[in-house]
Amino acid sequence: MTHTYEFARPALTVDIVVFALDDDELKVMLIERDLQPFAGAWALPGGFVRVDETLDEAARRELHEETGLHDIYLEQLYTFGQVARDPRERVVTVAFYALVNLAGHSVRASTDARNAAWFSLSDLPKLAFDHADILKTAVERLRNKVSYQPIGFELLPERFTLTQLQRLYELILDRELDKRNFRKKVLAMEFVKETGEIEKDVAHRAARLYRFDKRKYDRLMKQGLHFEI
Amino acid sequence: MTHTYEFARPALTVDIVVFALDDDELKVMLIERDLQPFAGAWALPGGFVRVDETLDEAARRELHEETGLHDIYLEQLYTFGQVARDPRERVVTVAFYALVNLAGHSVRASTDARNAAWFSLSDLPKLAFDHADILKTAVERLRNKVSYQPIGFELLPERFTLTQLQRLYELILDRELDKRNFRKKVLAMEFVKETGEIEKDVAHRAARLYRFDKRKYDRLMKQGLHFEI
Repeated sequence: MTHTYEFARPALTVDIVVFALDDDELKVMLIERDLQPFAGAWALPGGFVRVDETLDEAARRELHEETGLHDIYLEQLYTFGQVARDPRERVVTVAFYALVNLAGHSVRASTDARNAAWFSLSDLPKLAFDHADILKTAVERLRNKVSYQPIGFELLPERFTLTQLQRLYELILDRELDKRNFRKKVLAMEFVKETGEIEKDVAHRAARLYRFDKRKYDRLMKQGLHFEI
Repeated sequence: MTHTYEFARPALTVDIVVFALDDDELKVMLIERDLQPFAGAWALPGGFVRVDETLDEAARRELHEETGLHDIYLEQLYTFGQVARDPRERVVTVAFYALVNLAGHSVRASTDARNAAWFSLSDLPKLAFDHADILKTAVERLRNKVSYQPIGFELLPERFTLTQLQRLYELILDRELDKRNFRKKVLAMEFVKETGEIEKDVAHRAARLYRFDKRKYDRLMKQGLHFEI
């Protein structure tokens, strides 16, 4: 089916930066492009927006088709519209970022991508299109948000130790945090709850396990909660 | 000229929420629509993105065409993509917000809008499309940003008193601030500088005039400055 328009229209795509915590490193999901342009290069998962789906739906559909990921935390990042960002034609892309806890998700390559894989943020290949800019914007957003919203919790298992939480913050912020000061701040957050359980099967002394209370957090945010790590 | 595409494409527009400070109120610029849909209703200024311009360029062009405003502070807000947000066809819109100091700008109606006018946020007409949602998102963003970035300065004259600055913050945050505490915080910000001048032609005791040092601010932000009002 073909469609005729009076004026030339930019094409509209979505691209998704998926972050995960793995082996004590912050990682991002990339796919190897099978088709031109940039065939063989690594790129963010994404694709064209259909006329009958919202932007959020397009991002979730593409992510599922290309990587098998579903039911994950997803947020709109920024819309990129440089005129020459795609060599084929004018393409504007709405970028999203997603946070996943690797323990609960498996990732597979898809039909229109050769390969899907996790890359450490400190060891990235050259990316197709302006995807390096999009990724940089996503890292900045994550770094910025994590200091005033408890956004990183999606990257952790449901029950976590304060050491795991601190390590996550250190990875995102790319700097070391003072342990005592960090614990004091976190324990003052009413939305981080003790579970009453401790770690199992660990070589070191078992630490207490905590959980994130989203309902409590949402209620506090409505009252104008501010916190800073 | 007509263009033929294999798949139906969403149309892409920009819409701009322009804030200004006027008569001790926070106002927003609206235009009266001349054409269907929503002819006669008030709407945000905006229009279709051309294939040869960036999103930012499209927003500045539309704003200038519809309101005469130019050279103003403009930032991308969010992209709205609900499937039925425009009754004509699928239209995705990239929303921006802008801040202007009314003293330096005059506003006129344009050719494709009947009328352009400033409305107080506390007394808005019913808006066309999903523009009420876009406006709400812009107010939230402004409220959120103003508490960790000195973004409101664009709304003030170049030289301002601390009373003017406090009143601006109170309008944006929609709550009263303690005068002593506010002054202490502002004077601790190294990017708010005394000019050495005082107000002229005022009935009350003339207050000191300050200015915003953008260069200093940019330098501090690079070093990871955080502040909170």
